[in-house]
Amino acid sequence: MTKFALTPSEIIKVNHSDIEYVNDMLSVEEPLEIILVHFLDGIWVEKNIAVTMRTPGNDIELTTGFLFTEGIIQSFNQINKIEEFGSVEPFDGLTSNQIKFHLNGNIQFDLSKLERNFYTTSSCGVCGKASIDAVKIACPIIVPSEKWKIEKKVLLTLNDRLRNAQENFNYSGGIHASALFNLIGELIDIKEDVGRHNALDKLIGSVVQKNEIPLFNHILFLSGRVSFELVQKASMVGFRMICAVGAPSSLAVDLAQELDITLVGFLRDNRFNIYAAPERIVL
Amino acid sequence: MTKFALTPSEIIKVNHSDIEYVNDMLSVEEPLEIILVHFLDGIWVEKNIAVTMRTPGNDIELTTGFLFTEGIIQSFNQINKIEEFGSVEPFDGLTSNQIKFHLNGNIQFDLSKLERNFYTTSSCGVCGKASIDAVKIACPIIVPSEKWKIEKKVLLTLNDRLRNAQENFNYSGGIHASALFNLIGELIDIKEDVGRHNALDKLIGSVVQKNEIPLFNHILFLSGRVSFELVQKASMVGFRMICAVGAPSSLAVDLAQELDITLVGFLRDNRFNIYAAPERIVL
Repeated sequence: MTKFALTPSEIIKVNHSDIEYVNDMLSVEEPLEIILVHFLDGIWVEKNIAVTMRTPGNDIELTTGFLFTEGIIQSFNQINKIEEFGSVEPFDGLTSNQIKFHLNGNIQFDLSKLERNFYTTSSCGVCGKASIDAVKIACPIIVPSEKWKIEKKVLLTLNDRLRNAQENFNYSGGIHASALFNLIGELIDIKEDVGRHNALDKLIGSVVQKNEIPLFNHILFLSGRVSFELVQKASMVGFRMICAVGAPSSLAVDLAQELDITLVGFLRDNRFNIYAAPERIVL
Repeated sequence: MTKFALTPSEIIKVNHSDIEYVNDMLSVEEPLEIILVHFLDGIWVEKNIAVTMRTPGNDIELTTGFLFTEGIIQSFNQINKIEEFGSVEPFDGLTSNQIKFHLNGNIQFDLSKLERNFYTTSSCGVCGKASIDAVKIACPIIVPSEKWKIEKKVLLTLNDRLRNAQENFNYSGGIHASALFNLIGELIDIKEDVGRHNALDKLIGSVVQKNEIPLFNHILFLSGRVSFELVQKASMVGFRMICAVGAPSSLAVDLAQELDITLVGFLRDNRFNIYAAPERIVL
């Protein structure tokens, strides 16, 4: 899907007693430094806010999604200017590994938001319940009370559609995907990364850029497992259904139940499990 | 493997046209807050250094491994006292979600080490090469120049041995494992977590606790994919061979080649690929 997502590598393939020297494709992992420029006390200030290991490509979407799901920006028009700085790399000649987002002068940037203090909002200390409460407070979206319904057979088509679209997976077997489907099972967008959080940030960033949030009437499809943080990110843009090829964690299920998000896991080979809010699926 | 690694959950299982309401097991994910107490300018100072989402169990090993691979401690005897604080959770009654490591008074704690500035050591800016150079500088271990060799058939047994040991995987399908094997393919230790970095930190912490580093004559086995950061952590304790069920990223391969660590991927179903330093494997 992305220009620099794969790089060739000479490897030795061993299969029972067969040994082959072949050229294989690897998923590219490279650091990206995210720098924010913001107006503070009458001057412009630069702040390095993160270095993330990601697959190059869709870096603007990745950064937009990261800033949005961290609560730093609420819309893409709060960004005044974006700069990308490259460095020479052997595998593709040139890739950008620094990105600078200039916020509009009137945007208040709260650095403390980057330090996620799940626990300071609760008297119970650090625990799952406090984490869930913190997400409920941070999530700005008011969800409509009426629920749509989707046919089971539509869900059963999603994995094949994802895999057909996920060309990189077929080559390297080493990359995560986050995909956006509509309620009739059409693939709207797909983003890939060696990091599953990055793949979701890229997808969310793309939606935030086009000002297409909230995503009440879409399905998020994840190629791997579902952690608390992925459900948290999905909730920030209003997803009401998350499907995944892998298993969810306990806290991912707790958060989905608390936020009334339908959570489906192990969606593959004509099977799936429902962990939260099953009413949206016609069985 | 761990007491609180799994929790029951009522789910709906859909398989073609069959629909079942069953009790399933989920991998537990819970926040852990890591607090360091250190002596600075004549007084004891408490510093919250991380909140990580992890599977409860082996929290002391997890914290030890995290502090070691971040370069904060060099041995377990630099720790004077460990305190764990609990919070009530519905799924198991009581779990500890805060851990406090008291450093010995003479240990200098360098906070800046926690902010990993891969790129400040290199003139080429943020890129893969700078990241690799930074690891080479940070890694304190002098590696022996002579190389041992291992038979292909020994490697082909590791995955089955891991899966037999990884009971939790068989139940929930949602948990990563890091395992320690010796050179005749015997399983020495295994640690699990919903996060793959945490599983490796637990394994490394266990070894650091017992003062069994460096691990020149052992094999690290990972149940998933191999990222740059996992190779980096493995290199900190001297591993000379990393095997994984999944694919490595480009930067994981680059780092393994640079550090002369044998890197094996897709080790399953009597097959594997060799990505770096193949001389250690008799083919």
